[in-house]
Amino acid sequence: MRLSQYFLPVLKQTPAEAQIASHRLMLRAGMIRQASAGIYSWLPLGLRVLSKIEQIVREEQNRAGAQELLMPTIQPADLWRESGRYDDYGKEMLRIQDRHERDMLYGPTNEELITDIFRHSVRSYRDLPRNLYHIQWKFRDEVRPRFGIMRGREFLMKDNYSFDLDYAGARHSYNKMFVAYLRTFERMGLKAIPMAADSGPIGGDMSHEFIILAETGESEVYCHADYLGFEALAEDPDYDNDLQPVVDRWTSLYAATDEKHDPARFEAEVPADRRIATRGIEVGHIFYFGTKYSQPMGATVTGADGGEVPVEMGSYGIGVSRLVGGTIEASHDDAGIVWPEPVAPFKVGLVNLKPGDAACDGICADLYAKLGGAGVEVLYDDTEERAGAKFATMDLIGLPWQVIVGPRGAKDGKVELKNRRSGDRDELGLDAALQRLI
Amino acid sequence: MRLSQYFLPVLKQTPAEAQIASHRLMLRAGMIRQASAGIYSWLPLGLRVLSKIEQIVREEQNRAGAQELLMPTIQPADLWRESGRYDDYGKEMLRIQDRHERDMLYGPTNEELITDIFRHSVRSYRDLPRNLYHIQWKFRDEVRPRFGIMRGREFLMKDNYSFDLDYAGARHSYNKMFVAYLRTFERMGLKAIPMAADSGPIGGDMSHEFIILAETGESEVYCHADYLGFEALAEDPDYDNDLQPVVDRWTSLYAATDEKHDPARFEAEVPADRRIATRGIEVGHIFYFGTKYSQPMGATVTGADGGEVPVEMGSYGIGVSRLVGGTIEASHDDAGIVWPEPVAPFKVGLVNLKPGDAACDGICADLYAKLGGAGVEVLYDDTEERAGAKFATMDLIGLPWQVIVGPRGAKDGKVELKNRRSGDRDELGLDAALQRLI
Repeated sequence: MRLSQYFLPVLKQTPAEAQIASHRLMLRAGMIRQASAGIYSWLPLGLRVLSKIEQIVREEQNRAGAQELLMPTIQPADLWRESGRYDDYGKEMLRIQDRHERDMLYGPTNEELITDIFRHSVRSYRDLPRNLYHIQWKFRDEVRPRFGIMRGREFLMKDNYSFDLDYAGARHSYNKMFVAYLRTFERMGLKAIPMAADSGPIGGDMSHEFIILAETGESEVYCHADYLGFEALAEDPDYDNDLQPVVDRWTSLYAATDEKHDPARFEAEVPADRRIATRGIEVGHIFYFGTKYSQPMGATVTGADGGEVPVEMGSYGIGVSRLVGGTIEASHDDAGIVWPEPVAPFKVGLVNLKPGDAACDGICADLYAKLGGAGVEVLYDDTEERAGAKFATMDLIGLPWQVIVGPRGAKDGKVELKNRRSGDRDELGLDAALQRLI
Repeated sequence: MRLSQYFLPVLKQTPAEAQIASHRLMLRAGMIRQASAGIYSWLPLGLRVLSKIEQIVREEQNRAGAQELLMPTIQPADLWRESGRYDDYGKEMLRIQDRHERDMLYGPTNEELITDIFRHSVRSYRDLPRNLYHIQWKFRDEVRPRFGIMRGREFLMKDNYSFDLDYAGARHSYNKMFVAYLRTFERMGLKAIPMAADSGPIGGDMSHEFIILAETGESEVYCHADYLGFEALAEDPDYDNDLQPVVDRWTSLYAATDEKHDPARFEAEVPADRRIATRGIEVGHIFYFGTKYSQPMGATVTGADGGEVPVEMGSYGIGVSRLVGGTIEASHDDAGIVWPEPVAPFKVGLVNLKPGDAACDGICADLYAKLGGAGVEVLYDDTEERAGAKFATMDLIGLPWQVIVGPRGAKDGKVELKNRRSGDRDELGLDAALQRLI
């Protein structure tokens, strides 16, 4: 993509309304634009990141055996009356009347609708387990939307629902998502720690939030520092195997959000020099809730003995749009965003310092064609801006690699390769530069 | 994907409420399920088709130089007050008040919001032309939603908006989309004919609907039969070239929807035996509207002479979800859907007639692995159903190829390959079958 043609409205000034780094940087880098309070348009650069994160989430859901469908944004109120949540949900639910004065709502979540689909489609225990998810926009009418897309009103979420015949099955479904989440966040270059979370009236230990540590996080979190050193998962988990050992390992050390925090246990279990008490950003939540919806809504199957059994359910959410902000909170510096490569909008920023100079233009055209041909995504700054402004924009938008082509090096066939994260710069010939990038 | 694990709730009975083939077949084939009047969940099989159509639309938009962004579903009413459409739009607009009693709406289209983004981002004629699109759910509160997703209330649409300095630029932008649409529908295996459509108070000839001919279409259409024989476009149109000759060719013969139909001209220009008078399904609409929104909303750029010029705009829509139904209307038979290969949910249905038979199981496992390894999407019917039911389901869901593995052939290493469209069947060895499918 040529920057001269790209719709990238970067801002020179820091917008006054933005209180945290991700909000500031997303506005300045031309990734989003506010449409109204807590509601954003995703401009091309922002949408590229959002789509990459969405695709990683999708791939890992599919790998774990979940199947994708897509429920609508607008739901009938009657379903929520069946579960009893229509009155409970309060003002965060965006309630709507259609032209025939039927009560509708913009879905804040989908337990009722997926349970409705299930109860009309699945009849026998032989058709279990089922694990269905979708990636769809949700709406929660926050009283004070803030922090940009981190706490917006319209947001993109992956929500997955599992259906099992019994508790043992439900636990395996839960464990699958636990492992899939570890892998999902790891692939995005994030360190997300599963923390015990409130399991509500159901009780038990099957509720975990996945938390990115960041000073700007909205909740206080407490955990053992050893989690930061936990190494990567095995490349391809076999989701049919018993996953309990993986779950046990990742829950072996203390980690809790403030609502479950127990200071006495924290001090007893974690040596003083390994105690982390900081803030965190919730990017995922997995939750077992038994028959909370299947019971009142009549989502039953015929068991092996011929009796009707309400199915055991769990739900598993990932904040897809929130992850864009969460990644920036975890990965930026004074100059701008520092994208982990798997979610970067482009891998390479190619900077032509002197468009019109034959050597610069020739080298840039050559690199642009060869990188593109090899499937490397390149944003080519072919504009007439001065060098300082070009460097500032590239640092701001945070592409992992910059290739800087200036007239002095170009006449010797050299370019400068800069790593955005480390700041390391190397002067290289074209072939050597290509080898590093392809 | 193994059918025994796939969430595919096919219906044996034809649902009484479905009046047209696509609605009936989408319900029966387990592609969609109604959530409330005119609002549907897309089950896994349906979502696969929807995603493939969406991706073809996206690729052809990008190829034509359009850039993707994503605007939210919920918009502020104030923007629509600026353009004057808030009061004009009537009851089809889903109007909402949020918890602070601000007037909001679920976007039925996005001229106002994209114009707002443009006016805050682009200042100079040097930054033109711009061509921005998104693929997002829309809502129109139809008084009588019907025909399934063909005339639903919540629907997926690609809408593109062009911004040019002058009329000549706007015409070129219009022509780009005209050509991109020809290519888009052709890639989907559809014959869509551009027909002169109402251009409203703007007048002129820059308004075309792209229409699929089908008895079940909602509008009457009239055209020259030669259009049906118009051959494919050149492989890769160069969108920087003058595209007027392509547009001229595709508008050289009579073609009009009822609102623009002129019986006298139809009879004068089209020989009696070449006159087609039938019904059609609108799957796209391209439209030039000049400064209709830029003028009242102040979307101006500084021209070369320093003066402020309101930009010339056009909008270009494709009904992405409607295309799923439109394709079925154009391509089905008594037994079910007949998917064109580019949008088929899977390319191959692999039917094991006797699971448990060692030869059948072995051949199926082998084919399933090899086809999957070659990137061919396969739905593997490994269920215990009887043969007749298996054949009926495969015909119903309309995958382009069926590979039928029965015990008689299997012991000689033979399978039957059936083409869903032609009904042709061949008995083949495994390698020969693979060669036909990869």
